[in-house]
Parts: sequence; structure tokens; C-alpha cells
Amino acid sequence: MDQTIVEDIIKKVMAQVGSTGTPESSVAGDAIPVELSGRHVHLCEEDIKELFGAPLTHVKELSQPGQYLCKERVRLIGPSGVIDNVAVLGPARPKSQVELSLTDARILGIKAPVRQSGDVAGTPGIVLTSGSGLAGLEEGVIVAARHIHMSPADAARFGVSDNQKVDVHMDGSRPAVFKDVIVRVNKDFRLAMHIDFDEANSCGLGKNARGKIVGVTQEA
Amino acid sequence: MDQTIVEDIIKKVMAQVGSTGTPESSVAGDAIPVELSGRHVHLCEEDIKELFGAPLTHVKELSQPGQYLCKERVRLIGPSGVIDNVAVLGPARPKSQVELSLTDARILGIKAPVRQSGDVAGTPGIVLTSGSGLAGLEEGVIVAARHIHMSPADAARFGVSDNQKVDVHMDGSRPAVFKDVIVRVNKDFRLAMHIDFDEANSCGLGKNARGKIVGVTQEA
Repeated sequence: MDQTIVEDIIKKVMAQVGSTGTPESSVAGDAIPVELSGRHVHLCEEDIKELFGAPLTHVKELSQPGQYLCKERVRLIGPSGVIDNVAVLGPARPKSQVELSLTDARILGIKAPVRQSGDVAGTPGIVLTSGSGLAGLEEGVIVAARHIHMSPADAARFGVSDNQKVDVHMDGSRPAVFKDVIVRVNKDFRLAMHIDFDEANSCGLGKNARGKIVGVTQEA
Repeated sequence: MDQTIVEDIIKKVMAQVGSTGTPESSVAGDAIPVELSGRHVHLCEEDIKELFGAPLTHVKELSQPGQYLCKERVRLIGPSGVIDNVAVLGPARPKSQVELSLTDARILGIKAPVRQSGDVAGTPGIVLTSGSGLAGLEEGVIVAARHIHMSPADAARFGVSDNQKVDVHMDGSRPAVFKDVIVRVNKDFRLAMHIDFDEANSCGLGKNARGKIVGVTQEA
């Protein structure tokens, strides 16, 4: 995950609205800040113990309140490949989950489905190692469905609702409209669209990229 | 380049129209077969000599008449990475050209611009090796702009013209509309949309993927 980009976006947003950290409607106009999610894992307490034998170490806050990057890293091991130095995000979750791009999934040889975070029933498994420990997941490997985090105030402003799927115009060097972008509304969310690197590359997105809702793909 | 997919598409198209190899309007309805272009190089005579010391060896025809995959392979060497076993396409061209995805460009550490094939003025260079020879390109590294090859009959049928940019709906597991897709009309072209793996992954395209023109981004 390119934290520089994420932090840069947050700084600019905060400067723009003069926020002190409590998001309401956090970006003016109809532009939605786009954040690129690199491959990462969320771990349950049991897998944290297996892999590291100690609690996760907080390094820095992420854009969504309460989520943080950890010092710990893992190796992903699949049938046809290995990916090293993969970010671990905290806090611990009830179930471990590995979020990949389709490019990553191809390298590992894992047929990962596009799913919403947390919806891991029936997904493929994977092996994780840490240098000192190993954890085998029976399921939990997904390609995270693209989505927009927003507060109720932002949802009202855009005229959208939780779990609605919308069309978003991405203004990169080769523009595209992504369909089926899931709206996720929560009072603790800051306005941010999350996509993976395949999606960013497909439309040639640069830094400080923006999206714009241009239609509704499917009602909630 | 996944030749299996390409061949599969060609077979199905040919079966559908009962063609004997002379394309006119080669697919019924408004569906456009999508072919995934993997990373590959086109070489000028001088670079072929430097790298292999002999003419290219024909292995198999590609979907566009006259274009073929060669037995020869090259290594791409950039400032921050190396990619091995890269396909060489024949015949020789006036200028060498390396076509990458943005994911590949990131691995190599090369800032490749999105360009039409052949439009390489001012693009970054690269080093190619073959095991027995080496060629240094001063320019020629591009990310190929997505495009649709079609015959004049297909262009008339779709109501589009050469060099027009169109919007194409891609019906993958996470659908999208690609803007700025360049229409290329030539009597020798078979109907096929060419995209790279970043683009295919961004919309979760499977085998036998199809696109549909849904609008005009920009007139020719």
C-alpha cells in the first residue's frame, strides 16, 4: 500500500476543509478522493499468535478511523508462487483475510473471487509465514470489491445509500467508468474510494486521483 | 500473450461466420471479441541482428493478418527490475518497440506513456538481451493504448470511423466502461479489441470476453 499517496490525499483533504479530524462532509464538490489499496492481510488473534507470538505493533493510522498499519510483515505462499513483505493491518479481526489484486492472485496460483471485505465463506485458503511462525488459512483470500467509504452526511449529499452500487468515472490518463462500486456508509467513515492497483493501472491514475459518481448500477 | 484465448476466439469467430479467412464483417451482433495482449516487443532489422544474428523464426500466426509470434525471446532490463522470457512478434518493423502493462513498467522502473503503436517519439528507452546479444533502445517503451481492429464493413456496421475514440462496456465480473478506445479501420483487420492484463483484471474478464460500443468519447 502506497502510504505516501494515502497520506498526501488525507493532508490535502484536511487542508481543504480545515478539519480537526472529525469527518462530516469531508470533501467539497462532487470529487471523491481515490486511495489505492495494495495487497494486505487482516489477522485473527489466533493467527497473530501463531505467526508472531505477540500482539501486533502499531506503526501508523490509516485513512479509516481505527485502522492501522503494523510493523509486522508476512509472506504469502500459494500453489504457484510466493509474495514477500506483505503489509499486516490492525486491529485483529474475528477471521483472518488476505486481500489481493487479480495480478497477485495469478502469481500465487489462487482463484480469488471478488468479494466485500468480511465475506469470506467458501473462498480459497493460503499459507502465511512470518520468519518465525506459520499459519494456514482454510479460507479468506479475496479480491476486495471496489467501494466508497462515506459518512451519512456525504451519502445525503451524493443522494446514495449504504450497499447501493454506483458507477464512478475515473479521470486517469485513460479514463474509465467503474460499475458496481459499493457504497459503504458509516458515521466513522471518511470519504474515500478504495480500488486496487489493477484498477488504478487500467485507467492510468496518478497521484491525487479523483472519482465522480455518474450513475447507479444497482439499488441496495 | 495467452495464445490459447486468442486462438479460441478466432476459432469461435470463424465457426460462427463460416469464413475461409477473408474477414469482412466477422462477428454478428454488437459483440466485439476481446483479446488480451501480454507484454511483447517488435524489433527493427538492426536490433534483430544485434540480438539474434539471424532472422526471426515464425512460430504461429496471430489474429491480425501478417502478424506472427516468433520462437525468439528477450529479457527486458530496466533501472529497477528485469522481466524474462518476453515474446517477440514478427515481422520486423522500421523501429523497435516494447509494449508493457503499467504493472510491468513499475517492475522495470520505466515511466512508459500510454501511446498508439508506432508513436514512440520521446518515449523512454530500455535494454534488451537474448542470451547471445544485447540491444539498447534509445526510445520505444510504451503502454499500448486500448484499441479495436476492424474492417471497413465492421466500421460501417458500428457507425464508427478510423481514429475515432469510443466508449466500450466490458462485461466482466466487475463491469466497467473503458473510454478513449481507439478505432482502427483497415481492410486487412479482423474484428478484435486489444487490451492489456491490467485492463482485463480491472474488470475481472474471463475467457471469451466481449466488449460493446456504448458511446463516442471523441471524434477522429
